[in-house]
Amino acid sequence: MSEFTLSCPVPANDEETIKLAHGGGGRAMARLLDSVIRPGFRGASLELQHDGAVLDLAGATAFTTDSYVVKPLFFPGGDIGTLAINGTVNDLLMCGARPLYLSVGFILEEGLPFATLRRVVASMHDAALAAGVKLATGDTKVVDRGKADGLFVNTAGIGRVLTPTPIAPDQVRPGDAVILSGDIGRHGIAVMAARDGFGFETSIESDCAPLLGPVLGLLDAGIVPHCLRDLTRGGLASATVEIAEAVKLAIALDERAIAVCDEVSAACELLGFDPLHVANEGRFVAFVAAKDAKPAVEILRRHAVSANAAIIGEVREAPAGQVSCRGALGVARVVDMMSGEQLPRIC
Amino acid sequence: MSEFTLSCPVPANDEETIKLAHGGGGRAMARLLDSVIRPGFRGASLELQHDGAVLDLAGATAFTTDSYVVKPLFFPGGDIGTLAINGTVNDLLMCGARPLYLSVGFILEEGLPFATLRRVVASMHDAALAAGVKLATGDTKVVDRGKADGLFVNTAGIGRVLTPTPIAPDQVRPGDAVILSGDIGRHGIAVMAARDGFGFETSIESDCAPLLGPVLGLLDAGIVPHCLRDLTRGGLASATVEIAEAVKLAIALDERAIAVCDEVSAACELLGFDPLHVANEGRFVAFVAAKDAKPAVEILRRHAVSANAAIIGEVREAPAGQVSCRGALGVARVVDMMSGEQLPRIC
Repeated sequence: MSEFTLSCPVPANDEETIKLAHGGGGRAMARLLDSVIRPGFRGASLELQHDGAVLDLAGATAFTTDSYVVKPLFFPGGDIGTLAINGTVNDLLMCGARPLYLSVGFILEEGLPFATLRRVVASMHDAALAAGVKLATGDTKVVDRGKADGLFVNTAGIGRVLTPTPIAPDQVRPGDAVILSGDIGRHGIAVMAARDGFGFETSIESDCAPLLGPVLGLLDAGIVPHCLRDLTRGGLASATVEIAEAVKLAIALDERAIAVCDEVSAACELLGFDPLHVANEGRFVAFVAAKDAKPAVEILRRHAVSANAAIIGEVREAPAGQVSCRGALGVARVVDMMSGEQLPRIC
Repeated sequence: MSEFTLSCPVPANDEETIKLAHGGGGRAMARLLDSVIRPGFRGASLELQHDGAVLDLAGATAFTTDSYVVKPLFFPGGDIGTLAINGTVNDLLMCGARPLYLSVGFILEEGLPFATLRRVVASMHDAALAAGVKLATGDTKVVDRGKADGLFVNTAGIGRVLTPTPIAPDQVRPGDAVILSGDIGRHGIAVMAARDGFGFETSIESDCAPLLGPVLGLLDAGIVPHCLRDLTRGGLASATVEIAEAVKLAIALDERAIAVCDEVSAACELLGFDPLHVANEGRFVAFVAAKDAKPAVEILRRHAVSANAAIIGEVREAPAGQVSCRGALGVARVVDMMSGEQLPRIC
């Protein structure tokens, strides 16, 4: 290919599909990057063409990564791109950090339509702008047909830690209040309904969203949660059980305080799912000192994404490592992680 | 699964294979992490069980990412694990940074033997120790059978920039010497020979290695290269063409100075490959001021990984953006990136 061809803007040809050559480090790859990836991220990315980005950082820095393999790629309320930005942004926020920079690693399958990649890149661009993060560096690989499922994305994230004390499971104390930021189960049910062969319809959209507002809102008000955890795979159950086991304390939840909307509730009943196990992508739990609980809930309720925040339980000394949930009839049941898999490839 | 089972060390059962449930965020996933991933990385990883790691960083920081999809997973001289550590370590070094922390994101295919994952984790552990980096944070996803190819890995890396001036393509100047750190083409030929169906045998091993010694050696001696670039996909050709195009200068190479071992040379002749296009995983080019060229080569030759370093060319004003290579008969040819793909999934 001549240099002339390269310096011309490449027209959007949505008939085009990914070839193995697009991952080869040669001209075809340069063209993919120049025609789809770099222009798609313009506005949300640092302008760099090197092996890595150089950033100016100071002090305590949070670092996290997630790969995204959700199926289908597009679902009501989001797609793999929004998920890949918001998921990693939220993991940084859960460390008490302001998200600053993300890396993006694509694994593309031969035959993927350019149009699909463009849509995902556009979603990532918009989600990055909305969350105030810059895409700092990236990588693109192509695998042969049948060796991936359309596309997978990895994002790693860097953020500046905003709190003098750590926000982590080992900071949780007996007496802490457990606050849930909203109703649960929307993401899992939305993705399931979007999948072929599940045979049920729902108007539920994923709750996929960045949690910037509520987390920074708490910190700005001087409320430093002892621990924050976003509810993703494994739902509220896995998040609380992991923390209870890590800190060797008990967490007592009150089912009546845990919001589940009617449609999620109906879908769970139909499918035999416990809503506590269903995935979310825009919900979190905050463990705060009892005295901070009410002001924290008030602050969370000011943000749309956490408008239904509520205190759903408290931390106790014993039984160590156990999560229980008191039902409407006053009987408490032990909450455990799922032993197997509810729905693969939810994120 | 009871807590007792969990707190017991899980015996290495190499008959076991990855199930979808290992990615579900429940007990099976906790067990995979506790039995294979965390113990495998012990010694090379930070001890954390949270959404991300908190690191203490100061000043200019390099950030990079790469996904690894090499096929086969194991090849003479390395495997996907060594590649995933060394590749990202080397990208940080190419920014003039000391590699400090890596993230690791696995995408595992249902049916992958635990034994395979254990081998890869062990390679990553050893490579991380050898390169002096810590694995700071990670993620594991599982996709259904037939939707990945065994396993893919993404690593993102963070390093501390050691130089006051940037090391980047736009720092390259006319008159700069181009130094190549060793003979080229080993990785590409080794992976190709390891692949089913290629039908040729060779004793060539991949050059996959961390480039810590030579790069830190240069910087310690006060030699700040204008630009560094490791030769991966696309080989020496893509690396130099990308830089020539970015800085709008010419790069004139001398073929007689570019080392290619006999076996790589023979394989390239057999397959019709230009060695300049063949992938490497432990070689780099350094662009240095002419006055620094000889001392730089002397320093590089002190390290085993760059014992055959040599000056292979120089940077000129014109023709802008063009790389040429003068052959044994004194005739110069234009070097371009490959237009298509030589060998998919080389890294």
